[in-house]
Amino acid sequence: MLDLIRHDAIHELRLARAPVNALDPALVRALREAVEAAPNEGARALVLSGAPGLFSAGLDLPALLQLDHGALHAFMADFFGLCGALAGSTIPVVSAITGHSPAGGAVLAIMGDYRVMARSADPAKPFRIGLNEVQVGLPVPEPIQFALRRLVGTYRAERLVTAGAMIDSERALALGFVDELVEPERVVARAIEWAREWLQLPEHAARETRRLARADLAAALCDPEKLPVATFVADWFAPEAQARLNAVVAQLKSKAKR
Amino acid sequence: MLDLIRHDAIHELRLARAPVNALDPALVRALREAVEAAPNEGARALVLSGAPGLFSAGLDLPALLQLDHGALHAFMADFFGLCGALAGSTIPVVSAITGHSPAGGAVLAIMGDYRVMARSADPAKPFRIGLNEVQVGLPVPEPIQFALRRLVGTYRAERLVTAGAMIDSERALALGFVDELVEPERVVARAIEWAREWLQLPEHAARETRRLARADLAAALCDPEKLPVATFVADWFAPEAQARLNAVVAQLKSKAKR
Amino acid sequence: MLDLIRHDAIHELRLARAPVNALDPALVRALREAVEAAPNEGARALVLSGAPGLFSAGLDLPALLQLDHGALHAFMADFFGLCGALAGSTIPVVSAITGHSPAGGAVLAIMGDYRVMARSADPAKPFRIGLNEVQVGLPVPEPIQFALRRLVGTYRAERLVTAGAMIDSERALALGFVDELVEPERVVARAIEWAREWLQLPEHAARETRRLARADLAAALCDPEKLPVATFVADWFAPEAQARLNAVVAQLKSKAKR
Repeated sequence: MLDLIRHDAIHELRLARAPVNALDPALVRALREAVEAAPNEGARALVLSGAPGLFSAGLDLPALLQLDHGALHAFMADFFGLCGALAGSTIPVVSAITGHSPAGGAVLAIMGDYRVMARSADPAKPFRIGLNEVQVGLPVPEPIQFALRRLVGTYRAERLVTAGAMIDSERALALGFVDELVEPERVVARAIEWAREWLQLPEHAARETRRLARADLAAALCDPEKLPVATFVADWFAPEAQARLNAVVAQLKSKAKR
Repeated sequence: MLDLIRHDAIHELRLARAPVNALDPALVRALREAVEAAPNEGARALVLSGAPGLFSAGLDLPALLQLDHGALHAFMADFFGLCGALAGSTIPVVSAITGHSPAGGAVLAIMGDYRVMARSADPAKPFRIGLNEVQVGLPVPEPIQFALRRLVGTYRAERLVTAGAMIDSERALALGFVDELVEPERVVARAIEWAREWLQLPEHAARETRRLARADLAAALCDPEKLPVATFVADWFAPEAQARLNAVVAQLKSKAKR
Repeated sequence: MLDLIRHDAIHELRLARAPVNALDPALVRALREAVEAAPNEGARALVLSGAPGLFSAGLDLPALLQLDHGALHAFMADFFGLCGALAGSTIPVVSAITGHSPAGGAVLAIMGDYRVMARSADPAKPFRIGLNEVQVGLPVPEPIQFALRRLVGTYRAERLVTAGAMIDSERALALGFVDELVEPERVVARAIEWAREWLQLPEHAARETRRLARADLAAALCDPEKLPVATFVADWFAPEAQARLNAVVAQLKSKAKR
């Protein structure tokens, strides 16, 4: 469900959980371990990629709705731990956003250093990205809002997250939500290229400058004591969220049958 | 002097103090009370509107110049309290900026969630908005600068407030000082529409996401102990400000006679 | 090596150290003393200018590479002190960026209030500005990153400093790294004009508003205890930096001979 592809010292972690790269406990655990282990396995930069046309559908709602409080708490601790691993990684992480990227997928993407997104071949059906948690009844936790704020600005982030907006790739580029748009088949290659440019910089100077530049993000996400895991779990089991989440899942299943 | 117009659960507070919606002690008190009372009176969103062509002229300088230290201190505590009520409101506040919006009017507008501004019918005479306090000899207090910074960025706010700049609506839109421009007669309707969209979001998720997104603004404005009321009063009675303020008032009176 | 030119109460400090306005210990000391002394010598605003086509080449690497730990520490304390003097100046500082402005020159420019930059007469050879320290093997210290962040935003600053990017003037304008582009021969005049506009503002109101607007910058740079002088010195003497710096100097000498 997670492929590791080595391009010399650049390790690509490719989400490969059919059909939609939904983030379930096993994938999140595997991804977290891979991100944490990478520097010790010779990686000097990471690329996080998805499937053509769909980076990740976000959290695996049908699977997660089966979990009780304890199991969901363990999952969310892992998910926030994955965010912290990306935010605090000692090597840069480039997201190769190969297609649509709602909710959990967008969360992972904004923790990294750089975002290359696919420009849809059909301008009428652009790929979209966003923190649309509100639309499924879930508040956006503070450390995730923080990560978006530092990309797009405090107020712009407020508007996007409270509306649960999904925006198309061109607008994401204009706002700074992503850094570059390229043709779909070029996304991973361009992410690797960016990582290669990074590797050519003087190592200590680049690493230390990067550490200082991202210290605010690391501070917001790398201290497990401060992560709002319990709050998220409480929000998840609140009636509003349960009703919304179950409605979304019913809709997904009905679509799948057609 | 303040009309309350109910559009279902959206309550419009319309400044209606002829001739220029100047903010005097009675209007500020009425507005503060209305904002604080709204959630308990069934409001789920607020629209703050003004008169066609003029949102508010800002503080009522002629009236305020009559006040002694104690009375001005009481007024400013109320004015900052009004800012805090808007910044910390548990329901969203949309400003329907129906026309020019200098100083105090702009201050109220930037405390809210969203700003719809009138696009003048005559492009040669655009409506303008700004924190132009410096031009009348008054420093812009820190919490008000803070509110502007989170909209337009730290440095852009620095340039605008130190110059006491009034900018036209197109530039306000480009900088993020306001969110949308619409025809003058559409401003209130569009603000209500935005509020209606808000009401369709999952309630708990939207409310909690919004609370986190605006926590910095609330922290800057909702603690009465931290508000620089005494500093503002001292600045007001300093010779430079008194000279400027009296000159502005003399000019207003001379205009009024013509 | 530093000319003081008085335009009434606007004092222009013109870097005049042939051939490239490189910042050596004597120039940095002279500039720091001049900035600190200016308000007591009747200056109400400062303009910091360079040579036509070259604002400053940045730190004088050949000279500084001769210094031992103690001497370099003293120099860096002075350089950071100069940054603090500019960041905390009680009178505004306008940078007249008369041409290229890499590294140390750019650092000084971003400490001031406003930046006017030369638009090259030859569009194919635009003037460039940037914090390119990483390219010579030196990390960008936190307070200098901070100064850039408040101009261009947190994430944009991250990208620029980690890459050690030099950007052309048009892009610098678009990002907010500089405020205006004018013809090369107009740069100093425009900077003086901006300062004159400042002097026409109500004095106390403008000064106090400016003090509040820039308090974050002053806090980051004006406390000598918090400045990372020792860290910078350690970075300088690390093998990577020494190798890079010596390579750059060898290249400069070889160019000079041709």
